[in-house]
Amino acid sequence: MSWIDIPDGSPFGPENLPLGVFRYGDEEPRVGAAIGDQVIDLAPVASAQMLDGAQLFAEPTLNAFLALGRPAWRATRNWLLDLVRNENDRDAVEPHLTPQSAVSMQLPFEVADYVDFYASEQHATNLGRLFRPDSEPLLPNWKHLPVGYHGRAGTIVASGTDIVRPSGQRKPPDASVPTFGPSQRLDIEVELGYVVGTPSKLGAPVPVDSFEDHVYGVVIVNDWSARDLQAWEYVPLGPFLGKSFATSISPWVVSLDALAAAAVPLPVQDPAVLPYLSGSRLVNFDITFEVYLNGQLVSTPPYKDIYWSPAQMLAHMTVNGASVRTGDLFASGTVSGAAKDQRGSFIELSWGGREPLVVDGKEHTFLEDGDVVTIAAWATGGDGSRLGLGEVTGRIRPAVS
Amino acid sequence: MSWIDIPDGSPFGPENLPLGVFRYGDEEPRVGAAIGDQVIDLAPVASAQMLDGAQLFAEPTLNAFLALGRPAWRATRNWLLDLVRNENDRDAVEPHLTPQSAVSMQLPFEVADYVDFYASEQHATNLGRLFRPDSEPLLPNWKHLPVGYHGRAGTIVASGTDIVRPSGQRKPPDASVPTFGPSQRLDIEVELGYVVGTPSKLGAPVPVDSFEDHVYGVVIVNDWSARDLQAWEYVPLGPFLGKSFATSISPWVVSLDALAAAAVPLPVQDPAVLPYLSGSRLVNFDITFEVYLNGQLVSTPPYKDIYWSPAQMLAHMTVNGASVRTGDLFASGTVSGAAKDQRGSFIELSWGGREPLVVDGKEHTFLEDGDVVTIAAWATGGDGSRLGLGEVTGRIRPAVS
Repeated sequence: MSWIDIPDGSPFGPENLPLGVFRYGDEEPRVGAAIGDQVIDLAPVASAQMLDGAQLFAEPTLNAFLALGRPAWRATRNWLLDLVRNENDRDAVEPHLTPQSAVSMQLPFEVADYVDFYASEQHATNLGRLFRPDSEPLLPNWKHLPVGYHGRAGTIVASGTDIVRPSGQRKPPDASVPTFGPSQRLDIEVELGYVVGTPSKLGAPVPVDSFEDHVYGVVIVNDWSARDLQAWEYVPLGPFLGKSFATSISPWVVSLDALAAAAVPLPVQDPAVLPYLSGSRLVNFDITFEVYLNGQLVSTPPYKDIYWSPAQMLAHMTVNGASVRTGDLFASGTVSGAAKDQRGSFIELSWGGREPLVVDGKEHTFLEDGDVVTIAAWATGGDGSRLGLGEVTGRIRPAVS
Repeated sequence: MSWIDIPDGSPFGPENLPLGVFRYGDEEPRVGAAIGDQVIDLAPVASAQMLDGAQLFAEPTLNAFLALGRPAWRATRNWLLDLVRNENDRDAVEPHLTPQSAVSMQLPFEVADYVDFYASEQHATNLGRLFRPDSEPLLPNWKHLPVGYHGRAGTIVASGTDIVRPSGQRKPPDASVPTFGPSQRLDIEVELGYVVGTPSKLGAPVPVDSFEDHVYGVVIVNDWSARDLQAWEYVPLGPFLGKSFATSISPWVVSLDALAAAAVPLPVQDPAVLPYLSGSRLVNFDITFEVYLNGQLVSTPPYKDIYWSPAQMLAHMTVNGASVRTGDLFASGTVSGAAKDQRGSFIELSWGGREPLVVDGKEHTFLEDGDVVTIAAWATGGDGSRLGLGEVTGRIRPAVS
């Protein structure tokens, strides 16, 4: 399939070709494509082949490339597919291959607006049971619209960035006044994030069937969460400091064209959705996440059961005329499956802290200082090989005193 | 006070000198200062006088200037004060004066993250009574922390931008399922917005007494709101499409240094706030808003009674380690006074639509197509003259069918 040596089980086979921004030593960050355990430095290769827009690969973010739109994304993908398949291109490409272990990966794009949805029925049900034990777990609006809210774009960080334990106000149910201190219920949220390339116009909703015209691809998102801060602050305007301290994303953006091989039908939506959320090409993706706490696999959330299609999320987000911009990121919300070991957060995995996990012989509920969380994700490509999203990782540092 | 002719009652006297971005004909947008009813084109004047950073005034946004920090902001202000006071500078400045009526004002800065607070006790109480008539109007957290959430940065628009009536889902209490259509409860929110200049570092909270090191100045904010969309969507993650279609801001950014003349003590906070919200220099500003519907004054919300100081908003927003960036905007939330004609939204002015206003002989509750809303704001300067923020305006266009 490729003249480039690709290790068995690599997430980055010759049909994946995700894009990211890498830095080699002190050189300027620039755009690369992942294949196997190497990076192709795209700017010099594209430039030598006089590819249209070659200079965009010399930029320190993917934004200018993302703004080009789907026809250009497709043309670039086809060019890349040829490069790695054609032995004839070997001499042109080989000098620009670098081991991924020798480069540092950067935030792949400058984030414009960040929206976080709440699209997993199992997760919303679990959190309803935990936060509101005496009511129906799913709220009345949940099956009529993809519930979502805006997160903080300026604190989206590259994979590998240390996460400082946030401090803030929390008020346990039995306390009369809030206290201040480091979060005692620090958590993760395993999510899939959609990266917008082509902007839309203010006042012009994006129809549900135009999803692929606007969204370039996907990343893994870990929306770090401080459950104690969140519980005290979130009524009535939603989560704020419980989420805004950091959100980590994976370095490689996998295109929708690569991911098409993993498309699956959407679960049945009952009650029927309103016409603006109804479309002929609504799909989900059969992606499996793997959550590692200090190197031990603790959960495998499945994306395929997510209730809302990303096309519905985009249509909903813009139906009021709100525009999207290049670099917008919208994420699925925590992905949780039906089985206990498929839950996408520790508040669910430990059922509110009452049922600790045992990791490396030690009981774990929420995150402790020094803990390292790594989330990987993969689908199966058209040729049966692994089509991976790579991974996102972060280590918890102690609170600032 | 100045060799420049300043009309009586002008919001832009010689001690105000707000900055904005203007466009003259087809020329590139660039930075200007307002004085009286004129604009000073700053780039050529600063360049001729070899002012440090003069080239930043040739940029199409204020962001590069905002990033300089308070010592540079002060130096620039002092330079400007001298320019307009000194008859000697007349020959250098006069060729670069243009009537404001001859230029079009642009969005003054590129917005990074947008946070909206909920800091008026009167407004929060009014909305509590309207939305949750059977419970305590103020929620338990309200006096312990400045409640806030993230809004959509990408749909913040310049004053004068038409507002297309948003469509979306709404479910009246007596309906069994939601319906889709144009908002029937389109509203305004009168707010003061704080513009961040100097960024902070991820993981490093901004102390409450460092407010002036980070915030450059203020604008008027009209956070257009679709109350019917908001009511159906906002539990549990907060407002989303009910707000995200548009937020208008005034074109002139008034510096904290100019506004210092209008500083007043903060209202007494009881219960006492936690130490991270407690400071020695907590102030509010004695600013009065004027809300005009189709040219008729309908409300005069007073800012001075706002419960939370902007220094507390900034300290709270970063206490979890979240960083701020140049161009961040955080707003007060709707400003409402105790009197009926001091309320900062139509849902309050018309008490949920049940008590229509009479404007120009016609009953008004929420906004109708063609309505024009203009919000002005002013304080009193040190010399007793009017220290104005200018105005923000927008006209409602019919929904897209």
